Amino acid sequence: MLTKQQAAAAVRDAKAELGITWRQLADTVGRPVAWTTAALLGQHPMGEQEARAAASLLDLEPEVEASLREQPYRGALGHQVPTDPTVYRLHEVLEVYGPTIKELIHEEFGDGIMSAINFRLDVRRESDPQGDRVVLTLNGKFLPYQW
Amino acid sequence: MLTKQQAAAAVRDAKAELGITWRQLADTVGRPVAWTTAALLGQHPMGEQEARAAASLLDLEPEVEASLREQPYRGALGHQVPTDPTVYRLHEVLEVYGPTIKELIHEEFGDGIMSAINFRLDVRRESDPQGDRVVLTLNGKFLPYQW
Amino acid sequence: MLTKQQAAAAVRDAKAELGITWRQLADTVGRPVAWTTAALLGQHPMGEQEARAAASLLDLEPEVEASLREQPYRGALGHQVPTDPTVYRLHEVLEVYGPTIKELIHEEFGDGIMSAINFRLDVRRESDPQGDRVVLTLNGKFLPYQW
Amino acid sequence: MLTKQQAAAAVRDAKAELGITWRQLADTVGRPVAWTTAALLGQHPMGEQEARAAASLLDLEPEVEASLREQPYRGALGHQVPTDPTVYRLHEVLEVYGPTIKELIHEEFGDGIMSAINFRLDVRRESDPQGDRVVLTLNGKFLPYQW
Amino acid sequence: MLTKQQAAAAVRDAKAELGITWRQLADTVGRPVAWTTAALLGQHPMGEQEARAAASLLDLEPEVEASLREQPYRGALGHQVPTDPTVYRLHEVLEVYGPTIKELIHEEFGDGIMSAINFRLDVRRESDPQGDRVVLTLNGKFLPYQW
Amino acid sequence: MLTKQQAAAAVRDAKAELGITWRQLADTVGRPVAWTTAALLGQHPMGEQEARAAASLLDLEPEVEASLREQPYRGALGHQVPTDPTVYRLHEVLEVYGPTIKELIHEEFGDGIMSAINFRLDVRRESDPQGDRVVLTLNGKFLPYQW
Amino acid sequence: MLTKQQAAAAVRDAKAELGITWRQLADTVGRPVAWTTAALLGQHPMGEQEARAAASLLDLEPEVEASLREQPYRGALGHQVPTDPTVYRLHEVLEVYGPTIKELIHEEFGDGIMSAINFRLDVRRESDPQGDRVVLTLNGKFLPYQW
Amino acid sequence: MLTKQQAAAAVRDAKAELGITWRQLADTVGRPVAWTTAALLGQHPMGEQEARAAASLLDLEPEVEASLREQPYRGALGHQVPTDPTVYRLHEVLEVYGPTIKELIHEEFGDGIMSAINFRLDVRRESDPQGDRVVLTLNGKFLPYQW
Amino acid sequence: MLTKQQAAAAVRDAKAELGITWRQLADTVGRPVAWTTAALLGQHPMGEQEARAAASLLDLEPEVEASLREQPYRGALGHQVPTDPTVYRLHEVLEVYGPTIKELIHEEFGDGIMSAINFRLDVRRESDPQGDRVVLTLNGKFLPYQW
Amino acid sequence: MLTKQQAAAAVRDAKAELGITWRQLADTVGRPVAWTTAALLGQHPMGEQEARAAASLLDLEPEVEASLREQPYRGALGHQVPTDPTVYRLHEVLEVYGPTIKELIHEEFGDGIMSAINFRLDVRRESDPQGDRVVLTLNGKFLPYQW
Repeated sequence: MLTKQQAAAAVRDAKAELGITWRQLADTVGRPVAWTTAALLGQHPMGEQEARAAASLLDLEPEVEASLREQPYRGALGHQVPTDPTVYRLHEVLEVYGPTIKELIHEEFGDGIMSAINFRLDVRRESDPQGDRVVLTLNGKFLPYQW
Repeated sequence: MLTKQQAAAAVRDAKAELGITWRQLADTVGRPVAWTTAALLGQHPMGEQEARAAASLLDLEPEVEASLREQPYRGALGHQVPTDPTVYRLHEVLEVYGPTIKELIHEEFGDGIMSAINFRLDVRRESDPQGDRVVLTLNGKFLPYQW
Repeated sequence: MLTKQQAAAAVRDAKAELGITWRQLADTVGRPVAWTTAALLGQHPMGEQEARAAASLLDLEPEVEASLREQPYRGALGHQVPTDPTVYRLHEVLEVYGPTIKELIHEEFGDGIMSAINFRLDVRRESDPQGDRVVLTLNGKFLPYQW
Repeated sequence: MLTKQQAAAAVRDAKAELGITWRQLADTVGRPVAWTTAALLGQHPMGEQEARAAASLLDLEPEVEASLREQPYRGALGHQVPTDPTVYRLHEVLEVYGPTIKELIHEEFGDGIMSAINFRLDVRRESDPQGDRVVLTLNGKFLPYQW
Repeated sequence: MLTKQQAAAAVRDAKAELGITWRQLADTVGRPVAWTTAALLGQHPMGEQEARAAASLLDLEPEVEASLREQPYRGALGHQVPTDPTVYRLHEVLEVYGPTIKELIHEEFGDGIMSAINFRLDVRRESDPQGDRVVLTLNGKFLPYQW
Repeated sequence: MLTKQQAAAAVRDAKAELGITWRQLADTVGRPVAWTTAALLGQHPMGEQEARAAASLLDLEPEVEASLREQPYRGALGHQVPTDPTVYRLHEVLEVYGPTIKELIHEEFGDGIMSAINFRLDVRRESDPQGDRVVLTLNGKFLPYQW
Repeated sequence: MLTKQQAAAAVRDAKAELGITWRQLADTVGRPVAWTTAALLGQHPMGEQEARAAASLLDLEPEVEASLREQPYRGALGHQVPTDPTVYRLHEVLEVYGPTIKELIHEEFGDGIMSAINFRLDVRRESDPQGDRVVLTLNGKFLPYQW
Repeated sequence: MLTKQQAAAAVRDAKAELGITWRQLADTVGRPVAWTTAALLGQHPMGEQEARAAASLLDLEPEVEASLREQPYRGALGHQVPTDPTVYRLHEVLEVYGPTIKELIHEEFGDGIMSAINFRLDVRRESDPQGDRVVLTLNGKFLPYQW
Repeated sequence: MLTKQQAAAAVRDAKAELGITWRQLADTVGRPVAWTTAALLGQHPMGEQEARAAASLLDLEPEVEASLREQPYRGALGHQVPTDPTVYRLHEVLEVYGPTIKELIHEEFGDGIMSAINFRLDVRRESDPQGDRVVLTLNGKFLPYQW
Repeated sequence: MLTKQQAAAAVRDAKAELGITWRQLADTVGRPVAWTTAALLGQHPMGEQEARAAASLLDLEPEVEASLREQPYRGALGHQVPTDPTVYRLHEVLEVYGPTIKELIHEEFGDGIMSAINFRLDVRRESDPQGDRVVLTLNGKFLPYQW
């Protein structure tokens, strides 16, 4: 069976060759675009229907489709400090604002965390006369420490 | 002069002793709460007025106030992989969704990055009958690669 | 204010000097022994009553008591691979059985994790004629991936 | 001969294709499910009978069966800090509660360790109206330091 | 599709075989020489025309040309501290003069950074009777911290 | 005697208190501003006159002045990958353009390096209607491999 | 209370000042010399009598004596690869002969380990006309994997 | 030519298939068993006769035999901290007893090291009613620091 | 084209098969033996004549000869701390005597470095009745810091 | 007692204050200059006479003199890859020429190492009209692998 990385490479190749976008894939699969992208890159297991729809649109081999349905070992960064500038900026936000986020979560909610499991993500464009902006929304359930 | 870390410790102590919140500090300083928290934790230099207002509310020594106005060396994580569970969840989001965010930024905007400098952050609570949610909004200007 | 590490050192010293056990501390505080030990070592914030009870039994300074009530930055290992043999064996279990645990969680529950937040821990002795055994029970809520 | 990793991959593939569970494999092999899973993932050598039973149920090649009987080099984590969220939570338990476990072992047993060799592991589901729970039991012989 | 690394290797091979220089490639592509070199080494996506011109001069396979147009994962150093002496000297400059550059940027511009995105680079020779000199010019837009 | 780091801290404090700029210090010392800044931050030993001039302008203690004249152990980055965004951008340039610079040096000069010892650095502002630019010039003697 | 490291430093100082050897200390304490040395360097907790005997011979402060009786966090190497040549040679033996030892243990005993807990160590001199030899004997109970 | 790692894999495979032990190999080769095992695992170059004897007993290809005679790059651990429990215990001995061994070598011999080159190793079983014991003997010439 | 590592492997294989020494290669190439060895191991680009002479003596394929003429990415150690004992001893010299060499260079020459580019190396045997000695001579131009 | 690092700092301070050179110290101590420098920097224990002579010339406190006579834990580099340019060049030599040295030692001497214990070092100036040269001579006994 193909690994998740090999399946993701096959997805990228087919997508580039056919000129299909992540949003088109998300519409076909019937899930939000960020979830669909993450799943096709190997970070979420797809359901039978979802994998079939994606495989059909991208004309993927059956073994790619099978791999998309597998339970992943998650974690996509090659290095602990990412070298790609687009990804690095997110790490920089964590370096500069991590403790700020921690303080404000605890001030508002008490002791606990924002779940990264019961969690959703959105990436959108915000028009701005001084140059458009990227807006990322991270939305996770608060989980209090509970013994 | 005090280091930014020493000043941040003095801020935390005074804040705990006086029972003041980050939101009250932000109101006093007249800046958004996330910016104010980051600045008082040593990640942004404060203006003269802002430092004076914070120092007065928290009854800080003059050398703490002076330190708050200094240009920082930024970067607040003790380890490249943070050990604190609240902060770690943000690193996990990067591990699991980093390439997804990269793909969606490039699909929407082309080659470039979301700035972490021309950038603002918001942390808020979203009510939810199944348990309230933490919502983080990262909002940064898109910067295209431009030679 | 004292750091959590300094407070933990003060706790250890007083405990050794007075010959008090973690179980006696847990009875006094009115919480399970593993939680109480973790809290006094700086990994959980104590409530006002709990901190007062522990401080009184151990005859701690007010600033230690105040520190015990603070929100912690969690993470207690000096190195990513612990050098202490007692602690290392737990890391070895993770090295040898980590993927086994992952497979069995997914087989039983589907895609998700065992929470380390909505979580409790128990350490107990099991009599055995061939030598008594240490039994650790890790009990955490299952959290399914939920977009 | 196949490496243990290659054999484990063959096991996973056959298992997914045939829709067989780890528990069915454990019943066939006649050993506890956690042991069986660990052995098939390459962390324990299987006996002749055990390897034959597993190979027969999964329809594995003889060289896979031979590999399952080999003495392993143990250690299954690709990184010292695991990136997979399911596995990471176990590392987080060690970060937050490692010293607590150490203190309670020494208080109960004196100077020594919980063996990770004379050791067994159990993973089970506990029903709970607020969401079912994962319960891991680590059971190892206490070994006192003995010169 | 070929990876960017494989495409860069094909570029290097063809370039060596045909005896073509980076400057000739830059003239053919119609972009500055440093940009062209970086793009052919896999650090910038090329436009359709640019990739075609380079592929034609170097007689590259279509799949190499396709790869040159792909969005890259940037970051070209195999190690965080480069071992190659030519590249190491640039790291040494950062070690010795990094804080100096930071101080002088802040003194001249206030709080912010030199962009590495809205950025251009030039490498040229300066004649000198005591031995010619290498002159690198790094030219990036100043981006002020702006909330 | 004070370490170079302690002397640099004393310089920064005095400079901030007296409102003196690096350029004023460079004029007083009679050396280029980048050299002067690097020397006062502990990366170059100062001559007797230079140290006296700087100490007099900043009203420094004799032991600080003595330390400024000492031979340094160079290297100013706390981490191999710098966390400060202003400094990180220089590391990013190396990640993205390091091999490009290497190729162009070898194409122009043959096998060898740009010296970081027989080397000078300049930091200046370039006016630009779309936002002013930071221009760094790295100027080092070419050293051919010579057996 | 003193840390184990501080106590070990006090032991070394007193031992050097008084000209006492580790063998004399072992005789006084009534334990083997390697155990005694390890305990005084902070790797084993001493019993009440043992600590008193050592403290009396070395004329140590009561707080040093108390520290010697504490349960240690073990692990004495400052770096994972030791820099001291005497200690490094032991690491080199592990690098060169580690798998050899593993193979021969498994050939002789089957699957399991040599305990480092139920373990003793001896260091002795062997006369040899070509230069005397250091002989280290590591003697640990074999522990079979036992579920 | 095969690498030493490939030759070692061929040795292991043939050995497992033919059911030959390391001791039988040592007898055939005419060298001590620990040396023979280390050499066949790629840590010592074999003489012509030795390689031929081993190759003949194991029915190895000529290119394996040639590789066994090559000068090795030594060092067999995949990670600086070994993950295999059998090998880790040796690292743990170094962590816990490394400074003890150093102290006792210096007390007995003065300043110098135990050679790991003029060195031999033995692994043997010691019968013990409480469970047999593994005994490792490390025997190396003392080399004094000599300018 | 072959990488430098692949070319070095081909050199080693041919050299072993034909029984040719590095000194014979150096005589054929007409350069010092240390330079020749380094070049054939991929650390220096060879001139056209030199590569042809070596390829002819070793009967190498044209693509190996082409690779020997390429500009290398230098740096030959697999790990920052080498595991091979022969190479490690040189690292140990740096650990133990690095600061000594630095002090003596500065005392003799002032502020600057010994060039590793304008540099030559010699390895020779020195007869000694107590055992022959290896003598390494490192000879590099002194480069003063020069702004 | 002072640590070796503290003693080395005291030596450096006194040496700077009194304007004494390492060569003068070596003459006073009666040992070669490289050995003397290494010993005063904490890498060799000094004999009673040697320590007294150095202490007297530098007017050191008795506790510094006592520390100079202690057995050191060797290893003087703060980082595995040194940041100081003077010291780094030696590391670069190891990176570029390490395998060359290994090959030539084995070609000349067979399997074994150059001792770093039975070893001496010399640093001297070589006049050269094109700029004087630093010449380092590393001279160590060859030790053959000997079981």
